[in-house]
Amino acid sequence: MKSRSIYLDHNATTPLHPEARKAMEPFWEALFGNPSSLHAPGRAVARELKHARRDVAGFLGATDESEIVFTSGGTESNNAAFRSVLWTAKGKRKIVTSTVEHSSILKLAKALQEEGVHIDWIPVSGDGALDLEKLRTALTSETALVSLMGANNETGVLFPIEEIGKLVCERSVLFHIDAVQIVGKVPVRLRDLPVDFLSLSAHKIGGPKGIGALYIRKGVPFRPFCWGGGQERGRRAGTENVPGIIGLAAACRRLQKAMADESRKVGELRNHFEKELLRTLPQVEINGHSGNRLPNTSNLAFKGVDSEALLILLDEAGISASSGSACLSGAPEPSRVLKAMGFSNERSKSSVRFSFGPENTYLEVEEAVKRLQQLVTRLREIDLKEQHPHSVVQ
Amino acid sequence: MKSRSIYLDHNATTPLHPEARKAMEPFWEALFGNPSSLHAPGRAVARELKHARRDVAGFLGATDESEIVFTSGGTESNNAAFRSVLWTAKGKRKIVTSTVEHSSILKLAKALQEEGVHIDWIPVSGDGALDLEKLRTALTSETALVSLMGANNETGVLFPIEEIGKLVCERSVLFHIDAVQIVGKVPVRLRDLPVDFLSLSAHKIGGPKGIGALYIRKGVPFRPFCWGGGQERGRRAGTENVPGIIGLAAACRRLQKAMADESRKVGELRNHFEKELLRTLPQVEINGHSGNRLPNTSNLAFKGVDSEALLILLDEAGISASSGSACLSGAPEPSRVLKAMGFSNERSKSSVRFSFGPENTYLEVEEAVKRLQQLVTRLREIDLKEQHPHSVVQ
Repeated sequence: MKSRSIYLDHNATTPLHPEARKAMEPFWEALFGNPSSLHAPGRAVARELKHARRDVAGFLGATDESEIVFTSGGTESNNAAFRSVLWTAKGKRKIVTSTVEHSSILKLAKALQEEGVHIDWIPVSGDGALDLEKLRTALTSETALVSLMGANNETGVLFPIEEIGKLVCERSVLFHIDAVQIVGKVPVRLRDLPVDFLSLSAHKIGGPKGIGALYIRKGVPFRPFCWGGGQERGRRAGTENVPGIIGLAAACRRLQKAMADESRKVGELRNHFEKELLRTLPQVEINGHSGNRLPNTSNLAFKGVDSEALLILLDEAGISASSGSACLSGAPEPSRVLKAMGFSNERSKSSVRFSFGPENTYLEVEEAVKRLQQLVTRLREIDLKEQHPHSVVQ
Repeated sequence: MKSRSIYLDHNATTPLHPEARKAMEPFWEALFGNPSSLHAPGRAVARELKHARRDVAGFLGATDESEIVFTSGGTESNNAAFRSVLWTAKGKRKIVTSTVEHSSILKLAKALQEEGVHIDWIPVSGDGALDLEKLRTALTSETALVSLMGANNETGVLFPIEEIGKLVCERSVLFHIDAVQIVGKVPVRLRDLPVDFLSLSAHKIGGPKGIGALYIRKGVPFRPFCWGGGQERGRRAGTENVPGIIGLAAACRRLQKAMADESRKVGELRNHFEKELLRTLPQVEINGHSGNRLPNTSNLAFKGVDSEALLILLDEAGISASSGSACLSGAPEPSRVLKAMGFSNERSKSSVRFSFGPENTYLEVEEAVKRLQQLVTRLREIDLKEQHPHSVVQ
């Protein structure tokens, strides 16, 4: 089955790239030392860690490698940034974020509400664009932090980081970007961005799971989230996940060379996919279309089709995609992102996210289109029969 | 050099065991799915995650696999336990811990002091034993948590968890064990231990770096440290470090069979090492000797020898050991653990920790003993010359 399967869920996770895997190899046994140890096995690893940090900083266009703190992933990075800001901006107890953030921000913000922090939720328009006027008016002298995603994980809609950053900076408010979905897909040059914190995750860009980073602009005060040993210049305690860091750095080095080409290629695949579907299937709409989108993401509403049924049939056909909210439990909720964009439950429940990656091919896209044509047509026929049981007798 | 090197620093970190490495292999590319995804690649991984959790729970003798929450390591587990208790035990703002804890507890406790939490520091005796009377009197109606290490990372001295646990339970106080150094070395059977939380780290037991677990006794209230997605039954957000979890589980499965034999073997190596050194070198003393110790740890004071100099010469000879406090910066501080045991700065600064592992051999121990005899003798001669520059004329 494996060779025939078509993976179109790269916004959920990506396969470890062979270059990252190869880079990690020596760190399991030969280079297993603890980088805090002073002996040769420790020092050898500390050296490699330094190179890895430099490479990640370089890929992100950071001013200094000391701005990179390795964490266990995007979620930890987000939590660390929020907690630090609330501590260092003593007295200020307001955080501004959007209604379409990833659950790691959404649930964090809700937990902070329980703790007495005031959260301003900025809405988006029907195409997923942030309401900049509402953002502007939400910024007060009480605001400690603005946290926004670089791009939406469900629709791929990009927020205008630079424009927002300038706005936020003018008010002397700290600015955090959940960049998990943009890093590796669109260029990020931190030294030119008005951003104080940025979170990223390795496993979304061909690196391993369990590792991420938090960028902290030089000079921005920081208080650790995870206390203990003096690792990461006292900013993130715990023995470093060395193979993970090495894998992340390898993914970054690879992307530094390959990203422009790969993003173009992936964008072409995505555009071909959408064009073919829209051309051949009636009543298919792109969610977040008019917004500036990630090149790899396609969120489509198939009118009259239950997305969960479609996903199950796709899965049986070896095609992996997802509904907005991957949910292990029984009844799937309509996507809260699509809801926030003003779509009806019906449209949300008929929407599927396809997210492409560099290893996808035209043949795979053609196959996915063909299958979707069959399955959507079939499901619509069933739907029709259920709605009009007597009209289709045979 | 590698083949000749002798690694005696297993309390700092251990090489990834080949069995763990092998178990992790399929999870880089073939089984790379996100276990939260509903499609086949996701479900395949979710299944394996379930088995891994069961195996870790089984190894620890937990009542139920749901008691295991995977984290990024021992430090995060410690932080998560403390933060949760302070939230759920509303009003209670006292934590009891010891003066010889690992820095992940020590620094965390100090950070909490900044936040207004009262910390009771329980002292130890000269042999490293906890002052149980002081512990008893420290427990008040204000005490939210007692946190103690299972064994000391520097001396190997074990704390009597069961006895302490009963004491703590009687007072309806929650009990957390930093078990990073005992798991995999001495049997832990959680269902029989009066313990509410237990932290462990994979890379100390032949598993990979960047992964650990927090045991949370069933029924004990818990509030997440890291907020976000619903992973780990809502108790630890963030895409699971799947290869890490698989590696930890493989290390546990291996130890479940091998631990008794390996601990005996490692204990014999350590005892042989100490016996030979004490027999052949004058003025060598074991720190924490009379306490009940881990089988693998030997913390030795070489009177008149500067431990940093000795470690550098050992390192040059391919032997990796450590002083109490591994410290990357310039002037090494005397170990705060040995200080807390009442030893002089002089003794602390002449002490070296050797920690053995299952891959060490008798030949390695013999070689290490021989080298130590030479180097300690040489350093003592230099010390003598420096102290009495005119008495040794030649």
